Amino acid sequence: MTTARLLITCKDEPGIVASITSFLYSHGANITELDQHSTDPENGVFFMRLEFTTDKFDIPKESFGKEFSKTAEKFRMEWKISYSDELKKMAIMVSKHDHALLELLWRWQRKEIKADLTAVISNHPDLRQPVLQFNVPFHQAGSEKEALNLVKGADLIVLARYMQILSPKFCKEYANRIINIHHSFLPSFAGASPYKQAYERGVKLIGATAHYVTEQLDQGPIIEQDVARVSHRLNVNDMVELGRNIEKQVLARAVKWHLEDRIIVFGNKTVVFA
Amino acid sequence: MTTARLLITCKDEPGIVASITSFLYSHGANITELDQHSTDPENGVFFMRLEFTTDKFDIPKESFGKEFSKTAEKFRMEWKISYSDELKKMAIMVSKHDHALLELLWRWQRKEIKADLTAVISNHPDLRQPVLQFNVPFHQAGSEKEALNLVKGADLIVLARYMQILSPKFCKEYANRIINIHHSFLPSFAGASPYKQAYERGVKLIGATAHYVTEQLDQGPIIEQDVARVSHRLNVNDMVELGRNIEKQVLARAVKWHLEDRIIVFGNKTVVFA
Amino acid sequence: MTTARLLITCKDEPGIVASITSFLYSHGANITELDQHSTDPENGVFFMRLEFTTDKFDIPKESFGKEFSKTAEKFRMEWKISYSDELKKMAIMVSKHDHALLELLWRWQRKEIKADLTAVISNHPDLRQPVLQFNVPFHQAGSEKEALNLVKGADLIVLARYMQILSPKFCKEYANRIINIHHSFLPSFAGASPYKQAYERGVKLIGATAHYVTEQLDQGPIIEQDVARVSHRLNVNDMVELGRNIEKQVLARAVKWHLEDRIIVFGNKTVVFA
Amino acid sequence: MTTARLLITCKDEPGIVASITSFLYSHGANITELDQHSTDPENGVFFMRLEFTTDKFDIPKESFGKEFSKTAEKFRMEWKISYSDELKKMAIMVSKHDHALLELLWRWQRKEIKADLTAVISNHPDLRQPVLQFNVPFHQAGSEKEALNLVKGADLIVLARYMQILSPKFCKEYANRIINIHHSFLPSFAGASPYKQAYERGVKLIGATAHYVTEQLDQGPIIEQDVARVSHRLNVNDMVELGRNIEKQVLARAVKWHLEDRIIVFGNKTVVFA
Repeated sequence: MTTARLLITCKDEPGIVASITSFLYSHGANITELDQHSTDPENGVFFMRLEFTTDKFDIPKESFGKEFSKTAEKFRMEWKISYSDELKKMAIMVSKHDHALLELLWRWQRKEIKADLTAVISNHPDLRQPVLQFNVPFHQAGSEKEALNLVKGADLIVLARYMQILSPKFCKEYANRIINIHHSFLPSFAGASPYKQAYERGVKLIGATAHYVTEQLDQGPIIEQDVARVSHRLNVNDMVELGRNIEKQVLARAVKWHLEDRIIVFGNKTVVFA
Repeated sequence: MTTARLLITCKDEPGIVASITSFLYSHGANITELDQHSTDPENGVFFMRLEFTTDKFDIPKESFGKEFSKTAEKFRMEWKISYSDELKKMAIMVSKHDHALLELLWRWQRKEIKADLTAVISNHPDLRQPVLQFNVPFHQAGSEKEALNLVKGADLIVLARYMQILSPKFCKEYANRIINIHHSFLPSFAGASPYKQAYERGVKLIGATAHYVTEQLDQGPIIEQDVARVSHRLNVNDMVELGRNIEKQVLARAVKWHLEDRIIVFGNKTVVFA
Repeated sequence: MTTARLLITCKDEPGIVASITSFLYSHGANITELDQHSTDPENGVFFMRLEFTTDKFDIPKESFGKEFSKTAEKFRMEWKISYSDELKKMAIMVSKHDHALLELLWRWQRKEIKADLTAVISNHPDLRQPVLQFNVPFHQAGSEKEALNLVKGADLIVLARYMQILSPKFCKEYANRIINIHHSFLPSFAGASPYKQAYERGVKLIGATAHYVTEQLDQGPIIEQDVARVSHRLNVNDMVELGRNIEKQVLARAVKWHLEDRIIVFGNKTVVFA
Repeated sequence: MTTARLLITCKDEPGIVASITSFLYSHGANITELDQHSTDPENGVFFMRLEFTTDKFDIPKESFGKEFSKTAEKFRMEWKISYSDELKKMAIMVSKHDHALLELLWRWQRKEIKADLTAVISNHPDLRQPVLQFNVPFHQAGSEKEALNLVKGADLIVLARYMQILSPKFCKEYANRIINIHHSFLPSFAGASPYKQAYERGVKLIGATAHYVTEQLDQGPIIEQDVARVSHRLNVNDMVELGRNIEKQVLARAVKWHLEDRIIVFGNKTVVFA
């Protein structure tokens, strides 16, 4: 069953939900999920995610923008529609660590994560074999330029422990379309060797953070985070091992939400309708 | 700012959200929260919670039912409206343990929990002093009949570790209006001495469960649960101590949700729009 | 660096730790980990785990029993020693679900889990390819008798979602050496279709339990458990998907602890020195 | 039953545990808890906590240092002994928020926290009544000098949301004896208005941190931390409300561990034998 997902951001005012749902109903949509949020009842910002079945929906994909324009303009909406039968193009970039990559490949294979996985790109040759076993193309890219060519047209680029910093140009071109997993509970321990930093500070929980990539390293909008308890018994290597399990789960959740159009970026924050 | 909360249950079909929100908008309501759920896109059951400001709403409380009837009948809705300026009458029943009671009194005093707290009723005299310090009436009730008289008209009766079993008559009269805290992660360890049962089974997490009370002991619709990790180092008393913190938090959340009309009971389960 | 791990159970009385540690010190052992537990200061049961380096230890493996016997007999100890350079023989039994299996294989490949992985045995052919990719022998066994032959001599048999019930004979022969992952928070929802049971009861957390297998189905000593939060939004399939992540992590922890000799079974419970 | 708790820190080398436990055993001690940790098997630092019953222990309190000196000097130990029948003097400093204070008072009254609670000191008059209801002296102190006089001789000063910065002199005089609760997951959001900082950064978990106070604001050794999940639905006030529950639990655990001599400070970190 094909569904459409409609994401909306606008200034909050009375009547938005009624307008949108009446419009959709009058065209035969059956709403299966509806989630909305307003930052404030007075002068707040309004966010909405709608999912509806399209089997009786009488507006073809190519005309939706035109048909919806009256409603959209009335409330000066920023909006985006996507359809479950049009898989998003996803590329994964990775260096040498395989845990986050394998978790994604495995969920993709069993269709927990639905995407057109076009390529895995690495600055190292090490992970070629495991990737090929999933029948996914593997490319070793020596430079960012090469990598940029290989990801061209991607709706989502996942940095599954990619240990190079992307150029501002790259970040801008794929704004809100690059998800990175950082191996700390941000904003603590941004930058290099976060587990070592965590060990040295003596925190009692370690974590991982999935976020959209911006020009500012580890400063982009946070999508998801999680933590695990540690004690004095764990050295840095133990933390690395424990952390792998947090990283891969946190990243997989963030990727799934992006692919299901559950995330709206607003300023440097995210609204996640999960 | 007064708000109204509208809870709706009906068979799912297209157009429900549009009908309700258009009705509300046409009468001046400003929706501040909207949450909905359908058990299935085809032939599912539809649940909805709406919260809207009433300052420009042109339907007086006493006429809402009449005005809303056309919409309600069209979809054969079960519905309920309540208003934030009409505090619910709440009574607390307790035996000798003070932790869950004190947490509720303290949150009530600081208005995290908003209710007209009419009385604390106990089958023991022990907790009179702490209750009176909150300027809340304390009654010692020797029998259920006495207790029933004292809670008459309550919108919510909270069993904050009340160690007597209520009669089927009592349970029926206050169906979906009595919340109990059971000191285990139900359905594990129903009945007496759950921490002892947990200790003897050797579980690695203990928990607490807030649920609506039905005639079947510890079998009613679950509202909220939480757990904490234990190890072989904890004996039964340690578990009791650790468990107190879970119990009081779980109960306080369930009570808050009931008072804010965030819970819909359906069969033996709950939909919680938290 | 080779280490020895000594596990001890006996009646608690003064002087046990002094006796053991003096014995070890006098023979050149350097204790790197020591953990102990007594169920009660008076007449309790004493449990201990010691790990020590053996490079300067002057007792050869084959003589340890004889040398230690005086100390052991004085306190009527049950004890067991193992060495980190003697990998335990591990076999995995699985049916059709690959998530728990792959998690174990990944961690084994990465040496997070250290074992001599002799075989993966299944009552179905489906998982042959993924297993062979790890260069691990895969056997399809049509009967328990066949399976028993294939696991002969195993120090640990892991049931990584093996959907057949083992005979009492099998359970007895490998007592405290078979670890099963059950996809519920035991003792809730033992038996078949636990996620369906959880869905129908309307619990707010679902879980998984790793336990040693005994003749009584899902009643053996619990090693590890964990949970994840669910809401009314999740149907049974969503719970199955979410649950997979709990199952695989819980099982992997239990397996690691067994292989590192961190678990003592006592009655129907475990002491886990993790 | 009186117990003694012995805390030890020294350079790790073979024979330490044997020496200590043999010494204790030879004097009639019955060890009920023993926990130890070494940062590294080679040239590491060794930490140990022992608890033993003293009813048959033949060394009077006043002679322990002399008797233990030979063992202590051999390994150049830093050590400390305390006895469960000598309650630690505890003072609580607080400003206007009552949640952390009340949690401590409740647990103290219930003897979950065992201390000689000498005074609650505040720079505001607001919390006088609730403190007096527990029969605990309340002092309003206008200056740090006054406060210093009132806490004189304290074994533990708890800052239960005390909103003034202590002078370096104060911090030094009570080094490792002042526990503060900071309302963020440190090192994130040190300083003022941490919930506001967390809201603005858009984190998905908020937390609280109990730590020993040093001259560097919010930089001292961390004792305990915990977190709770938040979403875009929570505004700053919601986070403050949710955070209160984390703060009070985290602080209560840290205080209990200090009073039971379960914490060893080493550099800017803690070893917690909980």
